[in-house]
Amino acid sequence: MKHFLFLFTLIVNTLTFSQSDAEIIKKIYDTSLSNGKSYEWLDYLSNQIGGRLSGSLNAERAVQWTKEELEKLGLDKVWLQPVMVLKWVRGTPEFAFIETEPGKTINVNICALGGSVATNPLGIKANVIEVHSIEELETLGKEKIEGKIVFFNRPMDQTLINTFRAYGGCVDQRGSGAKEAVKYGAVATIVRSMNLRLDDFPHTGAMNYGDTPIDQRIPSAAISTNDAELLSTMLKLDSKIKFYFKQNCKQLKDVLSYNVIGEITGSQFPKEYIIVGGHLDSWDLGDGSHDDGAGCMQSMDVLRLLKETGIRPKRTIRVVLFMNEENGLRGGTKYAKEAKRKGENHIFALESDAGGFTPRGFTFDCSDENFNQVLGWKPLFEPYLVHYFLKGGSGADINPLKTNYNVLAGLRPDSQRYFDYHHASNDTFDAVNKRELELGAATMTALVYLYDKYGVNPIKTNLKTN
Amino acid sequence: MKHFLFLFTLIVNTLTFSQSDAEIIKKIYDTSLSNGKSYEWLDYLSNQIGGRLSGSLNAERAVQWTKEELEKLGLDKVWLQPVMVLKWVRGTPEFAFIETEPGKTINVNICALGGSVATNPLGIKANVIEVHSIEELETLGKEKIEGKIVFFNRPMDQTLINTFRAYGGCVDQRGSGAKEAVKYGAVATIVRSMNLRLDDFPHTGAMNYGDTPIDQRIPSAAISTNDAELLSTMLKLDSKIKFYFKQNCKQLKDVLSYNVIGEITGSQFPKEYIIVGGHLDSWDLGDGSHDDGAGCMQSMDVLRLLKETGIRPKRTIRVVLFMNEENGLRGGTKYAKEAKRKGENHIFALESDAGGFTPRGFTFDCSDENFNQVLGWKPLFEPYLVHYFLKGGSGADINPLKTNYNVLAGLRPDSQRYFDYHHASNDTFDAVNKRELELGAATMTALVYLYDKYGVNPIKTNLKTN
Repeated sequence: MKHFLFLFTLIVNTLTFSQSDAEIIKKIYDTSLSNGKSYEWLDYLSNQIGGRLSGSLNAERAVQWTKEELEKLGLDKVWLQPVMVLKWVRGTPEFAFIETEPGKTINVNICALGGSVATNPLGIKANVIEVHSIEELETLGKEKIEGKIVFFNRPMDQTLINTFRAYGGCVDQRGSGAKEAVKYGAVATIVRSMNLRLDDFPHTGAMNYGDTPIDQRIPSAAISTNDAELLSTMLKLDSKIKFYFKQNCKQLKDVLSYNVIGEITGSQFPKEYIIVGGHLDSWDLGDGSHDDGAGCMQSMDVLRLLKETGIRPKRTIRVVLFMNEENGLRGGTKYAKEAKRKGENHIFALESDAGGFTPRGFTFDCSDENFNQVLGWKPLFEPYLVHYFLKGGSGADINPLKTNYNVLAGLRPDSQRYFDYHHASNDTFDAVNKRELELGAATMTALVYLYDKYGVNPIKTNLKTN
Repeated sequence: MKHFLFLFTLIVNTLTFSQSDAEIIKKIYDTSLSNGKSYEWLDYLSNQIGGRLSGSLNAERAVQWTKEELEKLGLDKVWLQPVMVLKWVRGTPEFAFIETEPGKTINVNICALGGSVATNPLGIKANVIEVHSIEELETLGKEKIEGKIVFFNRPMDQTLINTFRAYGGCVDQRGSGAKEAVKYGAVATIVRSMNLRLDDFPHTGAMNYGDTPIDQRIPSAAISTNDAELLSTMLKLDSKIKFYFKQNCKQLKDVLSYNVIGEITGSQFPKEYIIVGGHLDSWDLGDGSHDDGAGCMQSMDVLRLLKETGIRPKRTIRVVLFMNEENGLRGGTKYAKEAKRKGENHIFALESDAGGFTPRGFTFDCSDENFNQVLGWKPLFEPYLVHYFLKGGSGADINPLKTNYNVLAGLRPDSQRYFDYHHASNDTFDAVNKRELELGAATMTALVYLYDKYGVNPIKTNLKTN
């Protein structure tokens, strides 16, 4: 009996894919590497359009251009899905210095955090208190914080191999630092950039004031890692030094924007949807090449690569370029709401939003049964050095699509360099390697091909969305 | 009996390493990522010394500086091993253009290949014949080649995931093109740069004339990929265009240089040697950061990391910085000769000479039995996303150490970007990422630690060198 079970298991395993799958996947990789479009598209998006903060003119240009490019691919349907998005503008460049005594100053590199209020027009100058966590605020108390600028300086943990974990371990300082510090009378916050490297680029990113009343909100900015080290050192030498900064960013009214969607209608199961996507908006400092121009162009190329390799999908394959991931997640929320309203059965969704680096694997948000299915496909990816299949998160934009049976996944590229560029002015096209980007597009296409061919295991028809 | 065997196999597998190995390896990675020296050292080697072609003043400065740095580490022994090396000099910068008609020229980017002779002082101008392989020369014959410059333009294969295989499939054009073309009366050769990317950097590298008599040797140069495309297109439009280039490189007499060696003497088996190394010489165009400053600094850091993490090796661990890999392999040859002469039992050698990128795994040149041993250690590397353990080559410098029982290995970093920089003027420090380099150093240290602890399996005492 045991031997029979063993044999049975072997047979089931060997049936998880066929030799022709390996051949088709090789064709997908060959096509992406020798005749891919993701890099050429990214060149246009980054260098001809540029940074695409939600509600900006560039974001609208990116919407129109990607729609036109998708139309050129001869998809069955291309459309824009309207969504109201948050609009925050940076205004004139920020300015900051450390003042050791009146008239003696050292300029430092800062940028306003997304969602922050401005300083008053003449800027703000105050003493500084350095902390390493939000919890430390309570220990210090109002007495030591009131009237000061709180300087959050906990660095990312260098020893974590997955740099996103190091980011996750620090980003509360950026997201919640201001709303917590204000409770103790802080007049502003300065946050060490979320960057593992020592350099001169300040990294922006979203922060939120929670339920802090509008008139009590304090300005919040990121400082480059080099200047965070400088400020910390100078504070150790003299705790009386002052910090000055000026920023005139503001939150405007919500404006209309769009998710960009294209689809190849399924030939056998058109009502089963597989989506692949990234977010089209970016921060304004660089041109958003890695975050997330790369993921968008790869997602567009997934549909093109399916067509180029002669695959006629059985299920409906959609590319979705989500708007407003960076500072609102309105696009992802809207897409999921509409999908639910229309009763669209999204069996699989894949997001690429971790940079255009060499693909190392995927993380999956799904049941154990579905995870076992995908593990059966792992050998198909090993010739391409894609080894990493783990349960874990998928992507912010597709997360609202989760049901109790579908599969969400995130592409996991090599993460070592990502935070050198993330949300900073050096996130530009020259930091993207063509082959690495194209390998990512091929890896995504291969997984979409397999889900299209085999479906999720087992297909259930009772939809229960979160 | 089958069950018993199965159980036995399980036990053997679980005995290939212990929990404490996992803890020590974590400490090695943590130390390299938070307190590594490889990046700081590489900064000095690249930016304070620079390109280190064998026989150059910079090569000698690199020898002295690395010896001093090794001495600072408190090793048991540091010394220089004399070796006579080849000395080739580039002379003044090369110059080249395509001439469409007299007086109408377009400048292009070339560089002399290492080992090439000069053109005559006024340069050489001739018609061009494009070929895609050495075999094609025979098909064309003397009639179509005589008096012309042969332009080898077979590109690297974009579809190969391992870019070293793509390099291997093209490099005969560079290495042997001139000595073959001269047989058909060619007056010079121009070779498309070994680069997967289209850009403006010509890539040098070794070529050899074989037994071509000195007075019949023809000059040979590399052209950038962009200019190879340009030249090919222009030839299609008009096969009568001419190509002009001038170079005044030359081969000088051999000069004295050194391998730089440091060791920690083994506490239990001092006569069993484990070596780790890279090559200290580089081409002259860039500063040799990836090729192979990275591998040298990582190798030095292996010994430092062992000390930092409190490991007292049982066997003798040596770092060897080999001289003259690029155009002679004299250092590797000399080291192996001396090791054999002294009867030194080299059980394991590891080379890092594939760039300072994210480590993906190792290749091993060893018996199946020894390969099974190392496969048993694979789970220890998976937390660091090092998944790739394959039989294959090791490294050019350590290759002469092969015996019928020892293990040679090569670190295999991600190879996608390597040929963007290889042997070109953009192989500079800024192209190296600190974390990627440090992960490589840690990965090497972990493998050296395991071989030191467990030895090669089984240790044989009868030395048979190749």
